[in-house]
Amino acid sequence: MQFFRATRPAWAPLHLGGVPVPPDAARGNVEGLTGFAQVPVGVAWPLRLRGDFEGDYAVPFATTEGTMVASYQRGLRLCADAGGVNVRLLRDGYALFPLLAYPGVDEALAAARWVDAHQAELRAAAEATTSHGRVTELGWDLLGRRLVLTLRMHTGDAQGANMVNRAVSALVARVPGRPRVALHGYDPEKRASTRHWRGKWVVAEVVVPGELVRTRLRTTAAALAELWTDYHLAYGRMGTANHGLQVANGLAGIYVATGQDVAYVAESCTCTLSLEARGDELYASMDLPSLHAATVGGGTRKGTAAECQDLVGASSARELACVMAGAVLAGELNLAASFLGDDFHAAHERLGRNR
Amino acid sequence: MQFFRATRPAWAPLHLGGVPVPPDAARGNVEGLTGFAQVPVGVAWPLRLRGDFEGDYAVPFATTEGTMVASYQRGLRLCADAGGVNVRLLRDGYALFPLLAYPGVDEALAAARWVDAHQAELRAAAEATTSHGRVTELGWDLLGRRLVLTLRMHTGDAQGANMVNRAVSALVARVPGRPRVALHGYDPEKRASTRHWRGKWVVAEVVVPGELVRTRLRTTAAALAELWTDYHLAYGRMGTANHGLQVANGLAGIYVATGQDVAYVAESCTCTLSLEARGDELYASMDLPSLHAATVGGGTRKGTAAECQDLVGASSARELACVMAGAVLAGELNLAASFLGDDFHAAHERLGRNR
Amino acid sequence: MQFFRATRPAWAPLHLGGVPVPPDAARGNVEGLTGFAQVPVGVAWPLRLRGDFEGDYAVPFATTEGTMVASYQRGLRLCADAGGVNVRLLRDGYALFPLLAYPGVDEALAAARWVDAHQAELRAAAEATTSHGRVTELGWDLLGRRLVLTLRMHTGDAQGANMVNRAVSALVARVPGRPRVALHGYDPEKRASTRHWRGKWVVAEVVVPGELVRTRLRTTAAALAELWTDYHLAYGRMGTANHGLQVANGLAGIYVATGQDVAYVAESCTCTLSLEARGDELYASMDLPSLHAATVGGGTRKGTAAECQDLVGASSARELACVMAGAVLAGELNLAASFLGDDFHAAHERLGRNR
Amino acid sequence: MQFFRATRPAWAPLHLGGVPVPPDAARGNVEGLTGFAQVPVGVAWPLRLRGDFEGDYAVPFATTEGTMVASYQRGLRLCADAGGVNVRLLRDGYALFPLLAYPGVDEALAAARWVDAHQAELRAAAEATTSHGRVTELGWDLLGRRLVLTLRMHTGDAQGANMVNRAVSALVARVPGRPRVALHGYDPEKRASTRHWRGKWVVAEVVVPGELVRTRLRTTAAALAELWTDYHLAYGRMGTANHGLQVANGLAGIYVATGQDVAYVAESCTCTLSLEARGDELYASMDLPSLHAATVGGGTRKGTAAECQDLVGASSARELACVMAGAVLAGELNLAASFLGDDFHAAHERLGRNR
Repeated sequence: MQFFRATRPAWAPLHLGGVPVPPDAARGNVEGLTGFAQVPVGVAWPLRLRGDFEGDYAVPFATTEGTMVASYQRGLRLCADAGGVNVRLLRDGYALFPLLAYPGVDEALAAARWVDAHQAELRAAAEATTSHGRVTELGWDLLGRRLVLTLRMHTGDAQGANMVNRAVSALVARVPGRPRVALHGYDPEKRASTRHWRGKWVVAEVVVPGELVRTRLRTTAAALAELWTDYHLAYGRMGTANHGLQVANGLAGIYVATGQDVAYVAESCTCTLSLEARGDELYASMDLPSLHAATVGGGTRKGTAAECQDLVGASSARELACVMAGAVLAGELNLAASFLGDDFHAAHERLGRNR
Repeated sequence: MQFFRATRPAWAPLHLGGVPVPPDAARGNVEGLTGFAQVPVGVAWPLRLRGDFEGDYAVPFATTEGTMVASYQRGLRLCADAGGVNVRLLRDGYALFPLLAYPGVDEALAAARWVDAHQAELRAAAEATTSHGRVTELGWDLLGRRLVLTLRMHTGDAQGANMVNRAVSALVARVPGRPRVALHGYDPEKRASTRHWRGKWVVAEVVVPGELVRTRLRTTAAALAELWTDYHLAYGRMGTANHGLQVANGLAGIYVATGQDVAYVAESCTCTLSLEARGDELYASMDLPSLHAATVGGGTRKGTAAECQDLVGASSARELACVMAGAVLAGELNLAASFLGDDFHAAHERLGRNR
Repeated sequence: MQFFRATRPAWAPLHLGGVPVPPDAARGNVEGLTGFAQVPVGVAWPLRLRGDFEGDYAVPFATTEGTMVASYQRGLRLCADAGGVNVRLLRDGYALFPLLAYPGVDEALAAARWVDAHQAELRAAAEATTSHGRVTELGWDLLGRRLVLTLRMHTGDAQGANMVNRAVSALVARVPGRPRVALHGYDPEKRASTRHWRGKWVVAEVVVPGELVRTRLRTTAAALAELWTDYHLAYGRMGTANHGLQVANGLAGIYVATGQDVAYVAESCTCTLSLEARGDELYASMDLPSLHAATVGGGTRKGTAAECQDLVGASSARELACVMAGAVLAGELNLAASFLGDDFHAAHERLGRNR
Repeated sequence: MQFFRATRPAWAPLHLGGVPVPPDAARGNVEGLTGFAQVPVGVAWPLRLRGDFEGDYAVPFATTEGTMVASYQRGLRLCADAGGVNVRLLRDGYALFPLLAYPGVDEALAAARWVDAHQAELRAAAEATTSHGRVTELGWDLLGRRLVLTLRMHTGDAQGANMVNRAVSALVARVPGRPRVALHGYDPEKRASTRHWRGKWVVAEVVVPGELVRTRLRTTAAALAELWTDYHLAYGRMGTANHGLQVANGLAGIYVATGQDVAYVAESCTCTLSLEARGDELYASMDLPSLHAATVGGGTRKGTAAECQDLVGASSARELACVMAGAVLAGELNLAASFLGDDFHAAHERLGRNR
């Protein structure tokens, strides 16, 4: 089966095709380098986006989970035929939450008020540590005698962790009272939570005509909505911040392929899926409020990651985030349908690792 | 800097060194194959384990996050010099939770009692679908009219998802009353939760003499314990199931290197770290109750993953899980120390991607 | 409006009617006694139950929230006319979770295994502390070097806290290794959680014909199901263990009236509501997995509480728990309908405290 | 034992002493009135406050849990002798979160931007519904196609639920696009959550000299800090928003006594306790970010509630909230000490309901 028809003639994936990435390319990305792991990359096509970004995108997944790319492929095709996925980016800003411990509540509160009174000065100090970051929020919370600051910044096309870390150091150094400092007090770093979200907040949605639900997903919108009710009831008991099906699957695949810091999958998979029936139409949406995506920095412009980034062709981290959200939503549709019957197991048997 | 001195002469990492993995090797692991992502692998050494498994292990991390391997390396060396990490595997069993929707509570309850009354038959049916799986738990929960079964199995050295999926199909087919089925009702698949844990449950601990805390971590046990109190207070507000620092970091690195299904990082990072002062000694433990690890199946015995698996040299999935837990704990120690001051930022500046 | 037609001629509520409860009646229930708070009690009727208990029940609510009793009253009448609420008690057992801290994981694990090997002896020791309690579970969990035991007991018609506390003391005293003890390690006491449930687990359900939905609730089953989807999506983001509407309302009213330990409302309100459309019928269920109810002990047989208990006429704590669950479900129906439009506000204006 | 020495000669608790509250007094507070529940009230004294409010307060608890008032009494005395509890009110504002469902994300986003562009008009509309409420926040969140507004208001000395409900109706009526409305989308009403906090946010703290820890609590600050570490580790696994010991206890007692809407205990008990050793001194703090307290409205100025309010003598809801926080912190100290050994059980045996 031919999943991918390349339409971008410029794409010549030298390293993906087997030419070794030179060790020098890994400088700054790893220590104790002993070589390069090779992870199979499958490409699904076309992710058709509408909304903040429009067009057809190829989506590369690095994975060894048989059936996964095929599942996303079916979802992408379904969504494309349904008119595309509407994506909206609602917020963009990496945030850190340094904790400053004072002897007592009064000192912590005084420091909080000092922060309020010196917003301009502190924002300037934070921004002075970077050439293109911009502070979008400087707030605080109190936890007894512990003052926890929020510093949120636009970080351009970089993921932003290092940039905001530098800015936090500059910020914390200015807060008076000589508190004891824990650099990351409320720390959503690489963990899902129900409280602290950051990075890109993207909402994706698609409306699938009943005919496509029937012929492609071999089910009905009502059945999918009913399944989703089952899941929501169940998730409510589980104490989880991830209310999708298997969002981490698609994210992990794209992250490894495009050179993201893969551990952020644990945080980025914070989400809410919705599957609803409108007559025989299926309405589906995916809300990702803490999604990390970068097109520069880290491993993103190196070796095969650069090639996969070129393949996607996102001109900004925001666009890449929308590609991620759209792909994830498409994948959930196909997966949901498979959970209704024996399809899930059968597909693994036929295509995958069970043989 | 030379982090890794190889002591296993048999280790000849052909593909890690650049020889392309043949596309055939990816059969069953991916669809739409267009090549192989190449991810830098750094190796840290030695992870010294005591307890259920003893010995020195090399730990490969595939990552593009500069400073990460160096941080684990320092943690490993510290723990080795402290006498090693004690690891205990407390449970081993992948579980799935199929949901069976009945018309009402009474029918669901009748089915639950039928399950109780047919334990032997149902366990046999589940085990008949696999050559080496063994049922360790068959239970149920009710959510109104929805019956949710628990099927937990020993799955040998495989991760177990496919094996237990097959067994679930066999199980569900036997439950009477023709319920509507959602294959994964309570679904911890690739998500952290506070309720449903499975896979390997490993606890790791280490006691670090005060002298080493001072000279290596450049702090004191009391300062680390105080930092950890800060974090616990903060995490308590966040609605998270991950009570470690950056557990997903090490897991993601090892997962990509050793051919695990990377998306499980989102679930495996469920954890509790503890840092406590005993006089000037540091007591640290890491509890990972939902850790996934495999030495066979999926991508584990293919190409560079097989080479990294050989490098680790774990003779079972349980041993590999203990290696993961030990490495993760070691990394947390170094990271915690860096959060106390400006070390974290400085290391990123010097070694890493900030340049 | 006459909400309540008394059918139990024997009910002569002396103290509810104004005769002061003698101070001696409060012996053992309070220190520093300075008098008695008087809280208005409204009675709703009839709660029609089917299932584990059958019959019509009067339900007393002590409250000062105007409109609340009227709201429950409408819900009760609706459910009665729909054929009654089906209630099933699925588990009965108060549990405590003492924490035993050992120097290290190995000592904690050895103690855990000792507990496994001495189940019979330990259960006998626990049961020896009470004349009618019976151990239903004795288990353990490990949290690093901390062993956390689970002791679950049938406690008859008492709430059970004191009984199981005594049994825990006897239990803990027998565990070897001289651990440091924190009496309540995993402590669900008077807090909602997604992990540790105990007391009564009751599921209630009702099917309301479309005609009643239309004429009484002035809406449709589809609209209520849609509302409930809104709520589930929203709750999923909130990090809560309470997935009902305002379950604490009815529970608090019944608790104050019947002499329960009111603070348990914070734990008992752990729940899952479901509202689903079946054609034009409404299917509704309420799952309360950590519900506390007592008919003896504490304040339950004193003064006005005894009178309210007599009014309800539950012959056991289990029956009372089923009454609570049925009443709570009935109240949710009326409340849900009011959330659809302006009814909620209008009712408060007309009947209530807003004037 | 004489717990309470009245110092306010004006306090003549007619109804607490047994004179029946006239049924007319319950008008607007209950329907189907059949009488008044009588709940024993114990008073603890003195709660010594510093910070936002200063002075000694009597604290009435309506309860039938033997030993509870005595436990609070010991805590209050301890804190008074330690120099009093420092209380700071950090935020005051009841909030509601109406959900507006649009056909798609774009319509929802357009409505959100309309809200942003019409802040002044909408705030004015909300404030026009009340004589003394004041809007402090008008924000929004998106959940796919569902727009969830935040309306937060200062509500004076009333609890605020009805006031903000009216304002929400006025607000929602103005938002364009004819969305389907669910009045309470993100609904923290009477449930603990990790995300949506409102009402009073109060932090209380106390420093207890080592000598008092030894003589009164019969333990050490180090032992209490260690106990608290146990609890925090355990709570981290439990998926709870309540990180105190038994905060609901004191709140429920004060709520019933002072005529609060008791069901709010389930929400108000959201908290973070901290117990830390500073040398031999104990530092303790209690953070209550979602605390409800009223001195007017509902049942607060009726019958025995009015008498208990007079006894406390708080001149505002903010002052009453600080009294609640201070009392709760004091109670936790005594309770924590009792959890260290057999004291907890022994006290229940001697004073309480176990006899």
